[in-house]
Amino acid sequence: MKIKRSERLVDMTDYMLNRPHTLIPLTFFAKRYGSAKSSISEDLTILKRTFQERGIGLVETVPGAAGGAKYIPYILKEDANKFMDEVIEILNNSQRQLPGGYVYMSDILGDPSKLRFLGRIIATQYLNQQVDAVLTVATRGVPIAQAASQYLNVPLVIARHDSNITEGSTVNVNYMSGSSKKIKRMTISKRSLDEGSNVLIVDDFIHGGGTINGLSSLIKEFDCNLVGSTFFAEGVSDKNKDFGDYTSLVKMEHTDDDDMIITKGNYDEKIFGSTK
Amino acid sequence: MKIKRSERLVDMTDYMLNRPHTLIPLTFFAKRYGSAKSSISEDLTILKRTFQERGIGLVETVPGAAGGAKYIPYILKEDANKFMDEVIEILNNSQRQLPGGYVYMSDILGDPSKLRFLGRIIATQYLNQQVDAVLTVATRGVPIAQAASQYLNVPLVIARHDSNITEGSTVNVNYMSGSSKKIKRMTISKRSLDEGSNVLIVDDFIHGGGTINGLSSLIKEFDCNLVGSTFFAEGVSDKNKDFGDYTSLVKMEHTDDDDMIITKGNYDEKIFGSTK
Repeated sequence: MKIKRSERLVDMTDYMLNRPHTLIPLTFFAKRYGSAKSSISEDLTILKRTFQERGIGLVETVPGAAGGAKYIPYILKEDANKFMDEVIEILNNSQRQLPGGYVYMSDILGDPSKLRFLGRIIATQYLNQQVDAVLTVATRGVPIAQAASQYLNVPLVIARHDSNITEGSTVNVNYMSGSSKKIKRMTISKRSLDEGSNVLIVDDFIHGGGTINGLSSLIKEFDCNLVGSTFFAEGVSDKNKDFGDYTSLVKMEHTDDDDMIITKGNYDEKIFGSTK
Repeated sequence: MKIKRSERLVDMTDYMLNRPHTLIPLTFFAKRYGSAKSSISEDLTILKRTFQERGIGLVETVPGAAGGAKYIPYILKEDANKFMDEVIEILNNSQRQLPGGYVYMSDILGDPSKLRFLGRIIATQYLNQQVDAVLTVATRGVPIAQAASQYLNVPLVIARHDSNITEGSTVNVNYMSGSSKKIKRMTISKRSLDEGSNVLIVDDFIHGGGTINGLSSLIKEFDCNLVGSTFFAEGVSDKNKDFGDYTSLVKMEHTDDDDMIITKGNYDEKIFGSTK
Protein backbone atom coordinates (compact mmCIF):
# COMPACT_ATOMS: atom_id res chain seq x y z
CA MET A 1 0.00 0.00 0.00
CA LYS A 2 1.29 3.39 -0.94
CA ILE A 3 1.62 5.76 1.99
CA LYS A 4 0.46 9.32 1.37
CA ARG A 5 2.70 12.30 1.97
CA SER A 6 0.47 13.54 4.81
CA GLU A 7 0.91 10.27 6.69
CA ARG A 8 4.63 10.15 5.96
CA LEU A 9 5.09 13.65 7.38
CA VAL A 10 3.34 12.77 10.64
CA ASP A 11 5.28 9.53 11.11
CA MET A 12 8.63 11.04 10.08
CA THR A 13 8.16 13.88 12.56
CA ASP A 14 7.49 11.39 15.35
CA TYR A 15 10.38 9.18 14.26
CA MET A 16 12.92 12.00 14.14
CA LEU A 17 11.79 13.73 17.34
CA ASN A 18 12.41 10.45 19.15
CA ARG A 19 15.95 10.15 17.78
CA PRO A 20 17.81 13.46 18.20
CA HIS A 21 21.37 13.73 16.87
CA THR A 22 20.94 10.49 14.91
CA LEU A 23 21.48 10.26 11.16
CA ILE A 24 18.48 8.52 9.62
CA PRO A 25 19.30 7.24 6.11
CA LEU A 26 17.06 8.31 3.26
CA THR A 27 16.87 4.65 2.28
CA PHE A 28 15.37 3.81 5.69
CA PHE A 29 12.42 6.13 5.13
CA ALA A 30 12.09 5.09 1.48
CA LYS A 31 11.73 1.47 2.55
CA ARG A 32 9.48 2.26 5.51
CA TYR A 33 6.94 3.98 3.28
CA GLY A 34 7.55 2.22 -0.06
CA SER A 35 8.31 5.63 -1.56
CA ALA A 36 10.91 6.95 -3.99
CA LYS A 37 13.92 8.65 -2.44
CA SER A 38 13.02 11.81 -4.30
CA SER A 39 9.68 11.93 -2.47
CA ILE A 40 11.41 11.41 0.87
CA SER A 41 13.78 14.26 0.03
CA GLU A 42 10.83 16.53 -0.57
CA ASP A 43 9.27 15.41 2.73
CA LEU A 44 12.50 16.25 4.54
CA THR A 45 12.52 19.71 2.98
CA ILE A 46 9.09 20.32 4.47
CA LEU A 47 10.19 19.01 7.87
CA LYS A 48 13.33 21.12 7.79
CA ARG A 49 11.45 24.30 6.94
CA THR A 50 8.71 23.71 9.52
CA PHE A 51 11.15 22.74 12.29
CA GLN A 52 13.04 25.95 11.62
CA GLU A 53 10.02 28.23 11.34
CA ARG A 54 8.50 26.84 14.53
CA GLY A 55 11.74 26.84 16.51
CA ILE A 56 11.64 23.07 16.99
CA GLY A 57 15.19 22.42 15.85
CA LEU A 58 17.48 21.92 12.94
CA VAL A 59 17.08 19.17 10.37
CA GLU A 60 20.53 18.62 8.88
CA THR A 61 20.39 16.83 5.57
CA VAL A 62 23.34 14.91 4.23
CA PRO A 63 23.24 14.56 0.44
CA GLY A 64 24.32 11.56 -1.63
CA ALA A 65 23.69 7.82 -1.71
CA ALA A 66 24.66 7.40 1.95
CA GLY A 67 22.75 10.54 2.85
CA GLY A 68 20.02 11.11 5.31
CA ALA A 69 18.72 13.52 7.86
CA LYS A 70 19.53 14.37 11.44
CA TYR A 71 17.32 16.25 13.89
CA ILE A 72 19.18 18.58 16.23
CA PRO A 73 16.89 20.04 18.91
CA TYR A 74 17.25 23.63 19.99
CA ILE A 75 15.15 26.38 21.45
CA LEU A 76 14.89 29.95 20.22
CA LYS A 77 16.13 32.73 22.50
CA GLU A 78 12.66 34.28 22.70
CA ASP A 79 11.01 30.97 23.65
CA ALA A 80 13.68 30.26 26.26
CA ASN A 81 13.32 33.73 27.78
CA LYS A 82 9.54 33.55 27.84
CA PHE A 83 9.69 30.19 29.61
CA MET A 84 12.40 31.21 32.07
CA ASP A 85 10.55 34.44 32.94
CA GLU A 86 7.56 32.30 33.91
CA VAL A 87 9.74 29.98 36.02
CA ILE A 88 11.36 32.92 37.78
CA GLU A 89 7.98 34.40 38.59
CA ILE A 90 6.85 31.07 40.05
CA LEU A 91 10.04 30.75 42.13
CA ASN A 92 9.67 34.25 43.55
CA ASN A 93 6.34 33.36 45.16
CA SER A 94 6.93 34.10 48.84
CA GLN A 95 5.42 30.77 49.92
CA ARG A 96 8.46 29.05 48.44
CA GLN A 97 10.86 30.65 50.90
CA LEU A 98 12.29 28.03 53.27
CA PRO A 99 14.15 28.61 56.55
CA GLY A 100 17.90 29.02 56.13
CA GLY A 101 17.76 30.86 52.82
CA TYR A 102 16.45 28.10 50.59
CA VAL A 103 13.73 28.09 47.99
CA TYR A 104 11.45 25.14 47.30
CA MET A 105 11.96 24.09 43.70
CA SER A 106 11.62 20.29 43.64
CA ASP A 107 8.22 20.54 41.97
CA ILE A 108 9.63 22.60 39.09
CA LEU A 109 12.39 20.02 38.63
CA GLY A 110 9.83 17.18 38.67
CA ASP A 111 7.33 18.68 36.21
CA PRO A 112 7.67 16.97 32.82
CA SER A 113 6.36 19.94 30.84
CA LYS A 114 8.99 22.17 32.44
CA LEU A 115 11.75 19.56 32.16
CA ARG A 116 11.17 19.43 28.38
CA PHE A 117 11.89 23.16 28.13
CA LEU A 118 14.84 22.99 30.54
CA GLY A 119 16.37 20.07 28.65
CA ARG A 120 16.05 21.88 25.32
CA ILE A 121 17.54 25.09 26.73
CA ILE A 122 20.56 23.24 28.12
CA ALA A 123 21.04 21.18 24.94
CA THR A 124 20.97 24.32 22.78
CA GLN A 125 24.27 25.54 24.19
CA TYR A 126 26.09 22.35 23.20
CA LEU A 127 24.39 21.49 19.92
CA ASN A 128 27.54 22.01 17.89
CA GLN A 129 29.87 20.30 20.35
CA GLN A 130 30.66 16.65 20.74
CA VAL A 131 28.98 15.49 23.94
CA ASP A 132 29.24 11.78 24.83
CA ALA A 133 27.64 11.73 28.26
CA VAL A 134 25.82 13.91 30.78
CA LEU A 135 27.13 13.58 34.34
CA THR A 136 25.24 14.56 37.48
CA VAL A 137 25.22 13.66 41.15
CA ALA A 138 22.37 12.16 43.15
CA THR A 139 19.65 13.10 43.82
CA ARG A 140 18.12 16.42 42.98
CA GLY A 141 20.12 17.02 39.82
CA VAL A 142 18.99 13.80 38.16
CA PRO A 143 15.74 14.97 36.50
CA ILE A 144 17.19 18.06 34.83
CA ALA A 145 20.33 16.17 33.80
CA GLN A 146 18.16 13.43 32.32
CA ALA A 147 16.12 16.01 30.40
CA ALA A 148 19.32 17.43 28.88
CA SER A 149 20.61 13.94 28.07
CA GLN A 150 17.41 13.19 26.17
CA TYR A 151 17.73 16.16 23.85
CA LEU A 152 21.45 15.48 23.34
CA ASN A 153 20.59 11.76 23.10
CA VAL A 154 23.59 10.65 25.13
CA PRO A 155 23.85 8.48 28.26
CA LEU A 156 23.08 9.90 31.68
CA VAL A 157 25.66 8.99 34.33
CA ILE A 158 24.79 9.48 38.00
CA ALA A 159 27.49 9.85 40.64
CA ARG A 160 26.46 8.99 44.19
CA HIS A 161 27.63 9.88 47.64
CA ASP A 162 27.36 6.30 48.82
CA SER A 163 28.74 3.42 46.82
CA ASN A 164 26.42 0.61 45.96
CA ILE A 165 26.96 -3.10 45.46
CA THR A 166 24.88 -3.05 42.31
CA GLU A 167 27.39 -0.88 40.48
CA GLY A 168 30.35 -3.27 40.41
CA SER A 169 33.84 -1.75 40.70
CA THR A 170 33.71 1.97 41.34
CA VAL A 171 35.94 4.99 41.08
CA ASN A 172 35.82 7.25 44.12
CA VAL A 173 37.06 10.77 44.67
CA ASN A 174 37.19 12.94 47.76
CA TYR A 175 36.46 16.62 47.49
CA MET A 176 35.95 19.62 49.70
CA SER A 177 32.33 20.67 50.03
CA GLY A 178 32.13 24.34 49.08
CA SER A 179 29.60 25.37 51.69
CA SER A 180 30.22 23.14 54.72
CA LYS A 181 34.00 22.78 54.29
CA LYS A 182 33.75 19.07 54.95
CA ILE A 183 35.51 16.36 52.99
CA LYS A 184 32.95 14.44 51.00
CA ARG A 185 33.16 11.43 48.72
CA MET A 186 31.67 10.82 45.31
CA THR A 187 31.56 7.54 43.44
CA ILE A 188 30.58 6.15 40.06
CA SER A 189 30.80 2.76 38.45
CA LYS A 190 33.99 2.06 36.52
CA ARG A 191 31.82 0.95 33.63
CA SER A 192 29.88 4.17 33.34
CA LEU A 193 32.33 6.27 31.30
CA ASP A 194 34.72 5.41 28.49
CA GLU A 195 38.19 6.95 28.51
CA GLY A 196 38.35 10.09 26.39
CA SER A 197 34.62 10.78 26.51
CA ASN A 198 33.40 14.35 26.32
CA VAL A 199 31.33 14.96 29.40
CA LEU A 200 28.79 17.64 30.19
CA ILE A 201 28.04 18.33 33.87
CA VAL A 202 24.40 19.17 34.66
CA ASP A 203 23.19 19.72 38.21
CA ASP A 204 20.42 21.54 40.03
CA PHE A 205 22.48 23.94 42.11
CA ILE A 206 25.91 25.52 42.37
CA HIS A 207 26.93 27.34 45.52
CA GLY A 208 30.53 27.35 46.53
CA GLY A 209 31.44 24.82 43.89
CA GLY A 210 32.03 21.69 45.96
CA THR A 211 29.96 19.47 43.73
CA ILE A 212 31.51 20.70 40.53
CA ASN A 213 34.93 20.07 42.11
CA GLY A 214 34.00 16.49 42.83
CA LEU A 215 32.49 15.86 39.43
CA SER A 216 35.48 17.44 37.68
CA SER A 217 37.81 15.16 39.64
CA LEU A 218 35.80 12.14 38.51
CA ILE A 219 36.06 13.31 34.91
CA LYS A 220 39.86 13.58 35.30
CA GLU A 221 40.09 10.13 36.90
CA PHE A 222 38.48 8.68 33.77
CA ASP A 223 40.73 10.70 31.43
CA CYS A 224 37.63 12.33 30.04
CA ASN A 225 37.15 15.89 28.83
CA LEU A 226 34.87 18.42 30.46
CA VAL A 227 32.70 20.02 27.78
CA GLY A 228 30.88 22.41 30.10
CA SER A 229 28.75 22.75 33.21
CA THR A 230 25.15 23.89 33.44
CA PHE A 231 23.22 24.43 36.65
CA PHE A 232 19.57 25.16 37.10
CA ALA A 233 20.29 27.59 39.96
CA GLU A 234 23.31 29.51 41.03
CA GLY A 235 23.58 30.70 44.61
CA VAL A 236 25.40 33.99 44.30
CA SER A 237 28.83 33.44 45.84
CA ASP A 238 32.32 34.74 45.18
CA LYS A 239 33.62 31.19 45.20
CA ASN A 240 31.70 30.31 42.06
CA LYS A 241 34.10 32.52 40.12
CA ASP A 242 36.75 29.82 40.45
CA PHE A 243 34.73 27.58 38.17
CA GLY A 244 34.95 29.74 35.11
CA ASP A 245 32.65 28.91 32.38
CA TYR A 246 29.55 27.48 33.95
CA THR A 247 26.04 28.32 32.81
CA SER A 248 23.17 29.03 35.18
CA LEU A 249 19.50 29.35 34.34
CA VAL A 250 18.51 31.28 37.45
CA LYS A 251 20.38 33.18 40.11
CA MET A 252 19.45 33.15 43.83
CA GLU A 253 20.51 35.99 46.08
CA HIS A 254 19.77 37.01 49.68
CA THR A 255 17.94 40.26 50.16
CA ASP A 256 18.63 42.45 53.20
CA ASP A 257 15.75 40.88 55.13
CA ASP A 258 17.23 37.44 54.42
CA ASP A 259 14.67 36.32 51.86
CA MET A 260 15.89 34.91 48.59
CA ILE A 261 15.26 36.73 45.36
CA ILE A 262 15.44 34.82 42.10
CA THR A 263 16.63 36.46 38.90
CA LYS A 264 17.83 35.38 35.51
CA GLY A 265 21.07 33.38 35.37
CA ASN A 266 23.82 33.95 32.83
CA TYR A 267 22.27 31.59 30.24
CA ASP A 268 21.24 34.35 27.88
CA GLU A 269 24.86 35.33 27.37
CA LYS A 270 26.28 31.80 27.52
CA ILE A 271 23.73 30.12 25.27
CA PHE A 272 22.51 32.85 22.97
CA GLY A 273 25.58 35.08 23.03
CA SER A 274 23.68 38.15 24.13
CA THR A 275 25.69 40.70 26.05
CA LYS A 276 22.70 42.07 27.94
CA MET B 1 0.37 34.07 5.57
CA LYS B 2 -1.59 30.91 5.02
CA ILE B 3 0.06 27.78 6.41
CA LYS B 4 -0.07 24.71 4.21
CA ARG B 5 -1.47 21.42 5.42
CA SER B 6 1.95 19.74 5.18
CA GLU B 7 3.47 22.28 7.54
CA ARG B 8 0.51 22.12 9.89
CA LEU B 9 0.82 18.34 10.15
CA VAL B 10 4.51 18.51 11.08
CA ASP B 11 3.99 21.23 13.68
CA MET B 12 0.83 19.65 15.13
CA THR B 13 2.64 16.34 15.53
CA ASP B 14 5.46 18.03 17.42
CA TYR B 15 3.04 20.08 19.49
CA MET B 16 0.93 17.11 20.53
CA LEU B 17 3.84 14.73 21.19
CA ASN B 18 5.20 17.28 23.66
CA ARG B 19 1.89 17.51 25.54
CA PRO B 20 0.57 13.99 26.27
CA HIS B 21 -2.79 13.65 28.03
CA THR B 22 -3.57 17.33 27.41
CA LEU B 23 -6.67 18.49 25.58
CA ILE B 24 -5.65 20.97 22.87
CA PRO B 25 -8.65 23.03 21.71
CA LEU B 26 -9.42 23.07 18.00
CA THR B 27 -9.57 26.84 18.26
CA PHE B 28 -5.95 26.91 19.45
CA PHE B 29 -4.71 25.21 16.29
CA ALA B 30 -7.10 27.24 14.10
CA LYS B 31 -5.63 30.44 15.47
CA ARG B 32 -2.03 29.19 15.37
CA TYR B 33 -2.25 28.47 11.65
CA GLY B 34 -4.91 30.96 10.58
CA SER B 35 -6.95 28.03 9.28
CA ALA B 36 -10.61 27.07 9.37
CA LYS B 37 -11.65 24.68 12.11
CA SER B 38 -12.85 22.28 9.43
CA SER B 39 -9.30 22.07 8.03
CA ILE B 40 -7.88 21.45 11.51
CA SER B 41 -10.43 18.68 11.98
CA GLU B 42 -9.21 17.02 8.80
CA ASP B 43 -5.59 17.39 9.96
CA LEU B 44 -6.47 15.71 13.24
CA THR B 45 -8.08 12.83 11.37
CA ILE B 46 -4.79 12.26 9.55
CA LEU B 47 -2.82 12.47 12.81
CA LYS B 48 -5.20 10.09 14.51
CA ARG B 49 -5.01 7.51 11.74
CA THR B 50 -1.22 7.71 11.42
CA PHE B 51 -0.63 7.59 15.19
CA GLN B 52 -2.78 4.48 15.32
CA GLU B 53 -1.29 2.74 12.28
CA ARG B 54 2.27 3.38 13.47
CA GLY B 55 1.61 2.45 17.10
CA ILE B 56 2.51 5.94 18.35
CA GLY B 57 -0.59 6.40 20.45
CA LEU B 58 -4.20 7.39 20.54
CA VAL B 59 -5.51 10.77 19.40
CA GLU B 60 -8.80 11.26 21.21
CA THR B 61 -10.95 13.88 19.58
CA VAL B 62 -13.65 15.71 21.49
CA PRO B 63 -16.35 17.09 19.19
CA GLY B 64 -18.23 20.35 19.56
CA ALA B 65 -17.45 24.02 20.05
CA ALA B 66 -15.29 23.31 23.12
CA GLY B 67 -13.78 20.33 21.37
CA GLY B 68 -10.19 19.47 20.70
CA ALA B 69 -7.74 16.62 20.62
CA LYS B 70 -5.72 14.75 23.20
CA TYR B 71 -2.67 12.57 22.53
CA ILE B 72 -2.44 9.48 24.71
CA PRO B 73 0.88 7.66 24.25
CA TYR B 74 0.98 3.89 24.20
CA ILE B 75 3.12 1.13 22.78
CA LEU B 76 1.93 -1.92 20.87
CA LYS B 77 2.45 -5.34 22.41
CA GLU B 78 4.68 -6.45 19.54
CA ASP B 79 6.89 -3.32 19.78
CA ALA B 80 7.16 -3.71 23.56
CA ASN B 81 8.09 -7.37 23.27
CA LYS B 82 10.67 -6.74 20.54
CA PHE B 83 12.30 -4.03 22.64
CA MET B 84 12.22 -6.03 25.89
CA ASP B 85 13.70 -9.09 24.15
CA GLU B 86 16.65 -6.95 23.11
CA VAL B 87 17.07 -5.57 26.63
CA ILE B 88 16.94 -9.07 28.12
CA GLU B 89 19.59 -10.27 25.69
CA ILE B 90 21.84 -7.34 26.65
CA LEU B 91 21.32 -8.01 30.37
CA ASN B 92 22.19 -11.68 30.01
CA ASN B 93 25.69 -10.86 28.77
CA SER B 94 27.95 -12.65 31.26
CA GLN B 95 30.16 -9.58 31.71
CA ARG B 96 27.28 -7.91 33.51
CA GLN B 97 27.34 -10.39 36.37
CA LEU B 98 28.48 -8.74 39.59
CA PRO B 99 29.62 -10.40 42.83
CA GLY B 100 26.79 -11.14 45.24
CA GLY B 101 24.21 -11.99 42.62
CA TYR B 102 23.75 -8.59 41.03
CA VAL B 103 23.60 -7.54 37.42
CA TYR B 104 24.94 -4.24 36.11
CA MET B 105 22.07 -2.33 34.58
CA SER B 106 22.72 1.35 35.32
CA ASP B 107 23.68 2.01 31.70
CA ILE B 108 20.34 0.64 30.44
CA LEU B 109 18.51 2.89 32.92
CA GLY B 110 20.59 5.88 31.79
CA ASP B 111 20.21 5.44 28.03
CA PRO B 112 17.67 7.96 26.69
CA SER B 113 16.67 5.82 23.71
CA LYS B 114 15.85 2.92 26.04
CA LEU B 115 14.18 5.15 28.61
CA ARG B 116 11.76 6.37 25.93
CA PHE B 117 10.63 2.80 25.30
CA LEU B 118 10.51 1.94 29.00
CA GLY B 119 8.47 5.04 29.78
CA ARG B 120 5.98 4.25 27.02
CA ILE B 121 5.65 0.64 28.12
CA ILE B 122 4.93 1.63 31.73
CA ALA B 123 2.51 4.40 30.69
CA THR B 124 0.55 2.00 28.47
CA GLN B 125 -0.72 0.03 31.46
CA TYR B 126 -2.23 3.12 33.08
CA LEU B 127 -3.45 5.04 30.04
CA ASN B 128 -7.11 4.69 31.01
CA GLN B 129 -6.60 5.37 34.70
CA GLN B 130 -6.37 8.65 36.53
CA VAL B 131 -2.73 9.09 37.54
CA ASP B 132 -1.77 12.36 39.26
CA ALA B 133 1.84 11.67 40.18
CA VAL B 134 4.65 9.14 39.78
CA LEU B 135 6.47 8.32 43.02
CA THR B 136 9.93 6.77 43.25
CA VAL B 137 12.79 6.63 45.73
CA ALA B 138 16.33 7.90 45.23
CA THR B 139 18.52 7.16 43.36
CA ARG B 140 18.45 4.41 40.80
CA GLY B 141 14.71 4.43 40.21
CA VAL B 142 14.63 8.10 39.23
CA PRO B 143 15.37 7.85 35.47
CA ILE B 144 12.78 5.16 34.70
CA ALA B 145 10.20 6.86 36.92
CA GLN B 146 10.87 10.14 35.15
CA ALA B 147 10.45 8.46 31.77
CA ALA B 148 7.05 7.13 32.84
CA SER B 149 6.03 10.51 34.24
CA GLN B 150 6.81 12.14 30.91
CA TYR B 151 4.49 9.89 28.93
CA LEU B 152 1.77 10.21 31.57
CA ASN B 153 2.62 13.93 31.79
CA VAL B 154 2.29 14.07 35.56
CA PRO B 155 4.73 15.25 38.26
CA LEU B 156 7.60 13.07 39.38
CA VAL B 157 8.00 12.88 43.16
CA ILE B 158 11.24 11.54 44.62
CA ALA B 159 11.39 10.13 48.14
CA ARG B 160 14.81 10.12 49.78
CA HIS B 161 16.50 8.18 52.53
CA ASP B 162 18.00 11.33 54.01
CA SER B 163 15.95 14.44 54.62
CA ASN B 164 17.18 17.65 53.13
CA ILE B 165 16.91 21.25 54.24
CA THR B 166 15.95 22.33 50.75
CA GLU B 167 12.65 20.44 50.89
CA GLY B 168 10.98 22.37 53.72
CA SER B 169 8.73 20.39 56.07
CA THR B 170 8.81 16.68 55.35
CA VAL B 171 6.78 13.58 56.02
CA ASN B 172 8.85 10.62 57.19
CA VAL B 173 8.00 6.95 57.49
CA ASN B 174 9.93 4.03 58.87
CA TYR B 175 9.74 0.69 57.17
CA MET B 176 11.34 -2.71 57.33
CA SER B 177 13.85 -3.36 54.55
CA GLY B 178 12.81 -6.56 52.83
CA SER B 179 16.28 -7.97 52.30
CA SER B 180 18.39 -6.73 55.22
CA LYS B 181 15.63 -6.72 57.85
CA LYS B 182 16.77 -3.35 59.07
CA ILE B 183 14.50 -0.43 59.90
CA LYS B 184 14.93 2.28 57.30
CA ARG B 185 13.48 5.73 56.88
CA MET B 186 12.00 7.40 53.86
CA THR B 187 11.10 11.06 53.52
CA ILE B 188 9.39 13.43 51.10
CA SER B 189 8.49 17.08 51.19
CA LYS B 190 5.04 17.86 52.58
CA ARG B 191 4.44 19.98 49.51
CA SER B 192 5.10 17.24 47.02
CA LEU B 193 1.71 15.46 47.03
CA ASP B 194 -1.85 16.76 47.33
CA GLU B 195 -4.31 14.85 49.49
CA GLY B 196 -6.38 12.42 47.47
CA SER B 197 -3.92 12.18 44.57
CA ASN B 198 -3.72 8.99 42.57
CA VAL B 199 -0.13 7.83 42.77
CA LEU B 200 1.79 5.37 40.62
CA ILE B 201 4.93 3.82 42.12
CA VAL B 202 7.80 3.24 39.67
CA ASP B 203 11.17 1.92 40.77
CA ASP B 204 14.11 0.03 39.35
CA PHE B 205 13.98 -3.09 41.49
CA ILE B 206 11.72 -5.08 43.78
CA HIS B 207 13.17 -7.81 45.95
CA GLY B 208 11.56 -8.55 49.26
CA GLY B 209 9.34 -5.53 48.99
CA GLY B 210 10.87 -3.19 51.57
CA THR B 211 10.87 -0.20 49.27
CA ILE B 212 7.31 -0.69 48.13
CA ASN B 213 6.33 -0.95 51.81
CA GLY B 214 7.94 2.38 52.51
CA LEU B 215 6.47 4.09 49.48
CA SER B 216 3.00 2.69 50.22
CA SER B 217 3.23 4.04 53.79
CA LEU B 218 4.07 7.47 52.41
CA ILE B 219 1.08 7.32 50.10
CA LYS B 220 -1.15 6.48 53.08
CA GLU B 221 0.32 9.30 55.17
CA PHE B 222 -0.77 11.73 52.47
CA ASP B 223 -4.26 10.18 52.16
CA CYS B 224 -3.45 9.38 48.55
CA ASN B 225 -4.50 6.38 46.49
CA LEU B 226 -2.10 3.80 45.10
CA VAL B 227 -2.88 3.26 41.41
CA GLY B 228 -0.26 0.58 40.83
CA SER B 229 3.41 -0.31 41.05
CA THR B 230 5.80 -1.01 38.19
CA PHE B 231 9.39 -2.16 38.56
CA PHE B 232 12.03 -2.53 35.93
CA ALA B 233 13.38 -5.69 37.54
CA GLU B 234 11.95 -8.22 39.92
CA GLY B 235 14.30 -10.34 42.00
CA VAL B 236 12.45 -13.63 42.27
CA SER B 237 11.42 -13.98 45.92
CA ASP B 238 8.49 -15.46 47.78
CA LYS B 239 8.13 -12.26 49.71
CA ASN B 240 7.12 -10.32 46.62
CA LYS B 241 3.82 -12.18 46.68
CA ASP B 242 2.71 -10.01 49.57
CA PHE B 243 2.64 -7.01 47.27
CA GLY B 244 -0.09 -8.19 45.00
CA ASP B 245 -0.53 -6.41 41.81
CA TYR B 246 2.87 -5.12 40.81
CA THR B 247 4.19 -5.18 37.27
CA SER B 248 7.77 -6.15 36.38
CA LEU B 249 9.50 -5.74 33.04
CA VAL B 250 12.22 -8.31 33.69
CA LYS B 251 12.74 -11.10 36.20
CA MET B 252 16.11 -11.95 37.77
CA GLU B 253 16.75 -15.40 39.17
CA HIS B 254 19.76 -17.24 40.54
CA THR B 255 20.93 -20.25 38.58
CA ASP B 256 22.44 -23.23 40.38
CA ASP B 257 25.97 -21.88 39.85
CA ASP B 258 24.90 -18.60 41.46
CA ASP B 259 24.83 -16.54 38.29
CA MET B 260 21.79 -14.46 37.55
CA ILE B 261 19.57 -15.22 34.62
CA ILE B 262 17.26 -12.56 33.27
CA THR B 263 13.89 -13.40 31.77
CA LYS B 264 10.71 -11.61 30.88
CA GLY B 265 8.74 -10.08 33.74
CA ASN B 266 4.97 -10.27 34.10
CA TYR B 267 4.36 -7.13 32.01
CA ASP B 268 2.89 -8.98 29.07
CA GLU B 269 0.02 -10.23 31.19
CA LYS B 270 -0.34 -7.09 33.30
CA ILE B 271 -0.12 -4.55 30.48
CA PHE B 272 -1.39 -6.38 27.44
CA GLY B 273 -3.65 -8.89 29.14
CA SER B 274 -1.95 -11.92 27.62
CA THR B 275 -2.15 -15.05 29.68
CA LYS B 276 1.04 -16.52 28.28
